[in-house]
Amino acid sequence: MIGIFDSGIGGMTVARAVEQLLPDHPLIYFGDIARTPYGPKSPETIVNYSIRNTEFLLEKGATLIIIACNSASSVATTALRERFQVPIIEVISPAVEKAVRISKSGRIGIIGTKATVKSKVYQQKIQKKAPDFEVFSTACPLLVPLVEEGWLNKRETKMIIRRYLHPLKDKQIDTLVLACTHYPLLTELIQARIGKRVQLIDSSIETAHYTKTYLEKHPDLVSPEPGASHTYYTSDSTETARKVANYIFNRPMELIVA
Amino acid sequence: MIGIFDSGIGGMTVARAVEQLLPDHPLIYFGDIARTPYGPKSPETIVNYSIRNTEFLLEKGATLIIIACNSASSVATTALRERFQVPIIEVISPAVEKAVRISKSGRIGIIGTKATVKSKVYQQKIQKKAPDFEVFSTACPLLVPLVEEGWLNKRETKMIIRRYLHPLKDKQIDTLVLACTHYPLLTELIQARIGKRVQLIDSSIETAHYTKTYLEKHPDLVSPEPGASHTYYTSDSTETARKVANYIFNRPMELIVA
Repeated sequence: MIGIFDSGIGGMTVARAVEQLLPDHPLIYFGDIARTPYGPKSPETIVNYSIRNTEFLLEKGATLIIIACNSASSVATTALRERFQVPIIEVISPAVEKAVRISKSGRIGIIGTKATVKSKVYQQKIQKKAPDFEVFSTACPLLVPLVEEGWLNKRETKMIIRRYLHPLKDKQIDTLVLACTHYPLLTELIQARIGKRVQLIDSSIETAHYTKTYLEKHPDLVSPEPGASHTYYTSDSTETARKVANYIFNRPMELIVA
Repeated sequence: MIGIFDSGIGGMTVARAVEQLLPDHPLIYFGDIARTPYGPKSPETIVNYSIRNTEFLLEKGATLIIIACNSASSVATTALRERFQVPIIEVISPAVEKAVRISKSGRIGIIGTKATVKSKVYQQKIQKKAPDFEVFSTACPLLVPLVEEGWLNKRETKMIIRRYLHPLKDKQIDTLVLACTHYPLLTELIQARIGKRVQLIDSSIETAHYTKTYLEKHPDLVSPEPGASHTYYTSDSTETARKVANYIFNRPMELIVA
């Protein structure tokens, strides 16, 4: 069974992309809404929460874990791989591979939470693959609360995006990585602000493609079956979470409180 | 020892007010930054976190607890009083008493988090004291993240306050309760928007006055001593928390991670 966790509902963009590519693979999701957001918190706290989330998914039968959260992927991947035997897929490497492949100017922008930007993991991974590339990162901490509130097309959201993207505007980037699984819900506003010439990379979609390829190479890990269960757990129950979940999947979602 | 807890740093406005009125009383503060914010979360989750925070303060020697968080005061006060023997002071009743005392029109506005507004506890408490009063409440969920980010005077913050206060503008209120301990950091913006004729009530200051009166009636509970310790614990360590704490107290703050 594919196990996916996130700090809240943002990781559902990864789950949605996985469902689309692998509809017959059983899937279990855990959104840690009771402790959301992770992005402004310290690496130690994020590692602790990530371990607990992984344990929950393994108890429920997961045989492969996707960390559907850039903050947790940035600071907790190594700790999870040391502690657990199952394959751990994170959302960073697939986006990095795509960015290095498609950027022509070698100038790449990264937007994410404070935890992600501070970890410098995108920069390190990009420059390991392409040492001459330049990476410009900026943290956008208020975008997660704005998405979690469902303010997806409000004037204030546009202004805050404008303020956050300002330092990237004159860096002549040709590629911008949405290094937070909440941001695909703001794609249009971000694209409008950064300009049409900049290609956006959605880490959710890249991670789903990576997972599909990985499972093709390791077919014994998760067995597809028609009508396989896709179950969504959260650590808390709120109206806004349900609303945003319905919006992401475009269907009425049942969220089970664990 | 006076024990104070909050979901994060907002409750420091209560601690600051208590320090000013009772500088010689030993004080211990716990800010649950690792799980902040509480406002969008469910009552069950907020009760669980409040119990843990109270246990921490009692272990450290607190003999009186102040719930310096309106969300926790709204949904967890009864549970804490049932479970613990020490006096539990919440931030709602002191603000309600002041509002009922000073309002001339009997039309009172309340702004707070979703948890606080949904609990209707302000409305119930006001109408118990003054059954003919009208209460108009509105939730402002993004103000806590904006304060926690230190966006205290940004244009976007003004616009978001404008949007949130809009439904209260034509209700002819003469009193507005800041029913969240983060909001005193936005007093000027809120006052400018709601108008000079509306009196703002700061639940932090009212709670500090209430605590002082309570301790005058129960002098054996906490013994003052010159140079008494004021210790600030948090459940996580972040740069922004330190920055906002320094701003609130106007001195370099040491935050101990518990």
